[in-house]
Amino acid sequence: MKIAYLGPEKTFTEKATRELFPEGELVPIQPIRNVVMAVESGRVEGGVVPLENFYNGHVIHTLDSLTRCERAKITQEKALKVVHCLGTLPNHGKISRIYSKDQALEQCDEYIYTNFPDAETIATASTAEAADYIAKNKHLDAAAIAPQGALTKSGLEVIATDLCPNNSTRFIVLGRNPTKSTGDDKTVLAIHPPIRDRPGVLADCLNIFSSQHINLECIYSRPDGRKGYFFYVELDGHTDEENVSIALQALRYSLDSEHRHPDTIKILGSFANSHWKDEN
Amino acid sequence: MKIAYLGPEKTFTEKATRELFPEGELVPIQPIRNVVMAVESGRVEGGVVPLENFYNGHVIHTLDSLTRCERAKITQEKALKVVHCLGTLPNHGKISRIYSKDQALEQCDEYIYTNFPDAETIATASTAEAADYIAKNKHLDAAAIAPQGALTKSGLEVIATDLCPNNSTRFIVLGRNPTKSTGDDKTVLAIHPPIRDRPGVLADCLNIFSSQHINLECIYSRPDGRKGYFFYVELDGHTDEENVSIALQALRYSLDSEHRHPDTIKILGSFANSHWKDEN
Repeated sequence: MKIAYLGPEKTFTEKATRELFPEGELVPIQPIRNVVMAVESGRVEGGVVPLENFYNGHVIHTLDSLTRCERAKITQEKALKVVHCLGTLPNHGKISRIYSKDQALEQCDEYIYTNFPDAETIATASTAEAADYIAKNKHLDAAAIAPQGALTKSGLEVIATDLCPNNSTRFIVLGRNPTKSTGDDKTVLAIHPPIRDRPGVLADCLNIFSSQHINLECIYSRPDGRKGYFFYVELDGHTDEENVSIALQALRYSLDSEHRHPDTIKILGSFANSHWKDEN
Repeated sequence: MKIAYLGPEKTFTEKATRELFPEGELVPIQPIRNVVMAVESGRVEGGVVPLENFYNGHVIHTLDSLTRCERAKITQEKALKVVHCLGTLPNHGKISRIYSKDQALEQCDEYIYTNFPDAETIATASTAEAADYIAKNKHLDAAAIAPQGALTKSGLEVIATDLCPNNSTRFIVLGRNPTKSTGDDKTVLAIHPPIRDRPGVLADCLNIFSSQHINLECIYSRPDGRKGYFFYVELDGHTDEENVSIALQALRYSLDSEHRHPDTIKILGSFANSHWKDEN
């Protein structure tokens, strides 16, 4: 089975994909849009992309790419714990510079602020590159933030572990075959209200969900580039369930009673709830 | 006047800061948390950090860092158009690889998908580094995505401009002195409901705003690492205005009637509305 994932190789996304599809033929593709389109077009049977990181928030490109699809849907989610460590050369002196990928530097901002308030932080293309750079240039006044394996592989010593607690990335599996309800599912929606800037549009939408006793796990609004907004919503329940189905009908009627805007509500997928955030 | 901004130098953030404070003594600081804490502690008089990019969404570290502050508040916003261009060596052949910073590659995903569906994309530490790399290594089968200036400075030819339309980044100014109402303002709130996973908590909050005829420009929820959620809300109006003030009181009472959780609602700032998204 051919499975595309967000490349390059040797990243957390590859690790997640390997755990999800131990027997799959894995194909690294970049950027996210191309992974999603490979699934949409049927060139691959499945795809794996990140949806959310505990510290960095949502990966908008994943949501936006899926919103433009007709066939590719979310079929599964899986979270992977991200453990960043600090590495130096064995005979290092005072640390005056810290190298890492910019997102990792931001994820470890509290650790850096507390432990190395005066250190300069320098962004590299990847965490592995940060470790290699220090080792290769024999910088005794520098440290790298990277996974433990990348640090030791470069010959660095790990001097601190798990710099940002609770850190995990949630990946999603994309496929073209809808999943069945398991009784404990989630549904991701993209809502594009044709009505703009009227106070209460969003509250009206959310009242429809609460009237059906549907809990929202997540909501995110963003500009659509045409003076309006999209809302991404993640709710408890499957589109096969009656209360979700009623809520979606009511929502459609409330936002677009004359059915003029077919893209008002788009279902990005219903899938088993992994309860990823409860594991932190 | 000493103004901290998210470094390094020669980035869009420096450009925005220079336009906002032409006479200021600018200090590049990394990561975002350290810029925010420099303002909070009074080491600098102001700070400039990114809050949102049209394609990449919110900069969570900015919101999270501000939520942990007592004194540093948002006092102003300013959007800057981001124009990415494609550059190659003058005598280039077929483009089989595209180099750029990962965020820029994602921002230009639609352009790449449409025009170079088979090209490999490779992430570099910065857009300038991508241009330099191609020029230095004389790669005739590669292109770099970067601002026009960075491409021509490296000796590359610009073969396509404005690869991702509507792209802009919204920066915010941080300060310790609250701003006065201008009559056309916005307020950013961080709401941390002590009640968790009850359907309708968020709808109840939003109903309070709509009952006071307050329009929401933006809403974003994210996990708090303790099985609960934060909501970031951006609304039309200033905390000095009566309807906003009534809504905040009602919200506080609704979420925490016994005043047991002082951090339930945090005001991250009220400031003049730049209507940045209307300019796209």
